[in-house]
Amino acid sequence: MTATRNPAETPQLVGLDDIRAAAGRIADFVLHTPVIALPHPGRPDNLLHCKAESLQPTGAFKLRGACNTILQVLDQARERGVVAQSSGNHARAVAWLAHRLGLRAVIVMPDAAPASKVAAVRALGAEVELVPAAIRDTRPLELVAEHGYVHVPPYDDLRVIAGQGTVGLELVEQLPDVDVVLVPVSGGGLIAGMSAAVTALRPGARVIGVEPELAADAAESLRAGRRVEWGPERTYRTVADGLRTTVLGGHPWQHVRRYVDEIVTVSDDQIRAAMRHLAIEGRLVVEPAGAATVAAWMHDLVPAGPTTAAVVSGGSVDPALLSAVLAGRSTA
Amino acid sequence: MTATRNPAETPQLVGLDDIRAAAGRIADFVLHTPVIALPHPGRPDNLLHCKAESLQPTGAFKLRGACNTILQVLDQARERGVVAQSSGNHARAVAWLAHRLGLRAVIVMPDAAPASKVAAVRALGAEVELVPAAIRDTRPLELVAEHGYVHVPPYDDLRVIAGQGTVGLELVEQLPDVDVVLVPVSGGGLIAGMSAAVTALRPGARVIGVEPELAADAAESLRAGRRVEWGPERTYRTVADGLRTTVLGGHPWQHVRRYVDEIVTVSDDQIRAAMRHLAIEGRLVVEPAGAATVAAWMHDLVPAGPTTAAVVSGGSVDPALLSAVLAGRSTA
Repeated sequence: MTATRNPAETPQLVGLDDIRAAAGRIADFVLHTPVIALPHPGRPDNLLHCKAESLQPTGAFKLRGACNTILQVLDQARERGVVAQSSGNHARAVAWLAHRLGLRAVIVMPDAAPASKVAAVRALGAEVELVPAAIRDTRPLELVAEHGYVHVPPYDDLRVIAGQGTVGLELVEQLPDVDVVLVPVSGGGLIAGMSAAVTALRPGARVIGVEPELAADAAESLRAGRRVEWGPERTYRTVADGLRTTVLGGHPWQHVRRYVDEIVTVSDDQIRAAMRHLAIEGRLVVEPAGAATVAAWMHDLVPAGPTTAAVVSGGSVDPALLSAVLAGRSTA
Repeated sequence: MTATRNPAETPQLVGLDDIRAAAGRIADFVLHTPVIALPHPGRPDNLLHCKAESLQPTGAFKLRGACNTILQVLDQARERGVVAQSSGNHARAVAWLAHRLGLRAVIVMPDAAPASKVAAVRALGAEVELVPAAIRDTRPLELVAEHGYVHVPPYDDLRVIAGQGTVGLELVEQLPDVDVVLVPVSGGGLIAGMSAAVTALRPGARVIGVEPELAADAAESLRAGRRVEWGPERTYRTVADGLRTTVLGGHPWQHVRRYVDEIVTVSDDQIRAAMRHLAIEGRLVVEPAGAATVAAWMHDLVPAGPTTAAVVSGGSVDPALLSAVLAGRSTA
């Protein structure tokens, strides 16, 4: 990593070289996702360029960071197995890679995770341990201590951040004149990697985070100039189950405070409207977390481009919820 | 075109050179669509490689053929305007290109076309004329005679066939070991171009057509060794409004009889099940026509690969129908 080794004094930041190395490492496992031009509902000639990470084999960008991590510790992972915690998409990514690479995987999931996400992880052959949200971050470390598993962190890790940064690398290649990039924020791994990549390649471009207003810990952190934690009793209210992490990771925070201009928030109703618009006009199935950036754009909550792009991820949605949203109802 | 000029004696067939020229011509207007690996509902390690043409800006492969045609007659089109007939996706493609190129467009649509497709065409600034299905093919020629418009045919045209063939060119590049290619059949332009491309590049690969059993004129034609027409009172029964053409075009038929191994049929219930599977496991929104190939594969109606691919197109679906399908109901 292109940084000093004393995090107390100087933040460790991933650089373009780390992200380019990650891109080469993971190329055989991830999809080079397309950029889909989505018309604005009120102004059809106004387009949002959607980087469709929902089309990854596991439905989300999380595959990139997990892959960049596991491939760097593959020998230990083969010998001891891997453990990960996740509300869903990181879990699925680790389970999918473990299945493909022939590794044993144990996945710690919050007991409020949607049944469809739990079932998808089990279908890939991983062992699932359901725990209360409050101990979701500590339980994997206990399992590492007890069983020697290799830990694959969901976001607070420089290898993971470099992996997620490959989304930004591809986006700037696909859309060289991009001015504004909208990125969903939860633990912060994606926006950390993407902001490092985009600002290195397009110094004038602005990277803007998007969060549910019911889980707006990162927006509050950026305003306060320090990491602010929201308890799970607050963040678990939003329909966007993929964006409920209670506080930015330490490594992601160092990137966010340096590279990110602004974090805006969207309501759950705005998220549902964006899910519907993405399905009908973008032909993309997304879960609520995947629609957050589009919600901010279509409700004119972010500065306009001229060339605005957004990450759309993930795509693992409860069929009943999507059915309800398409029918114009707010709940299944 | 690589063929003699007397169709009565020798069929005119598009060749790889025509298709490669089309690919270069249309590159700035069409999306290089991704191939999405879709797990089988019963055997998750068994994958169908879906060429996601539903992600084109107008939701379907039709953009390719229309673009390859219009760009070859652009001066006349600018001067006189264009006319096209279509149940929806060709209409939308021509209207979108006309809007982008600044051309006047008149679109003849059957009066049974879904309201959403008609509205999409009008939103692009095209003039729509709704006619009974029986005269949908002849009315555009009257308009050409009356007003001098340039006609953009939906399928029975070698420029259109070469344009649709670019799907096959891309597919073989993306999936060089493809063995079986499933293609939806209506007027036959897509399967004509794709079968020409795929059999030239992969002589061992099999191209198999898929049709609704309620609109199975092409399957009957291939069995009979001659073009058989079904009346619109029969083909208009299927939910797959994109696959209701009553007879293969003459040029497509010459390609089908030469290059296509088999045409299989699927029920409307099988199509609805495939729409649901594509949405949940493939994260792709498709209309019934777009799910036909997947329906044949997931219900084990086609020979297995080892490497099987399918065209998934189009993606313009009535939200109420998709909502119903996701909720497990057969109608909106």
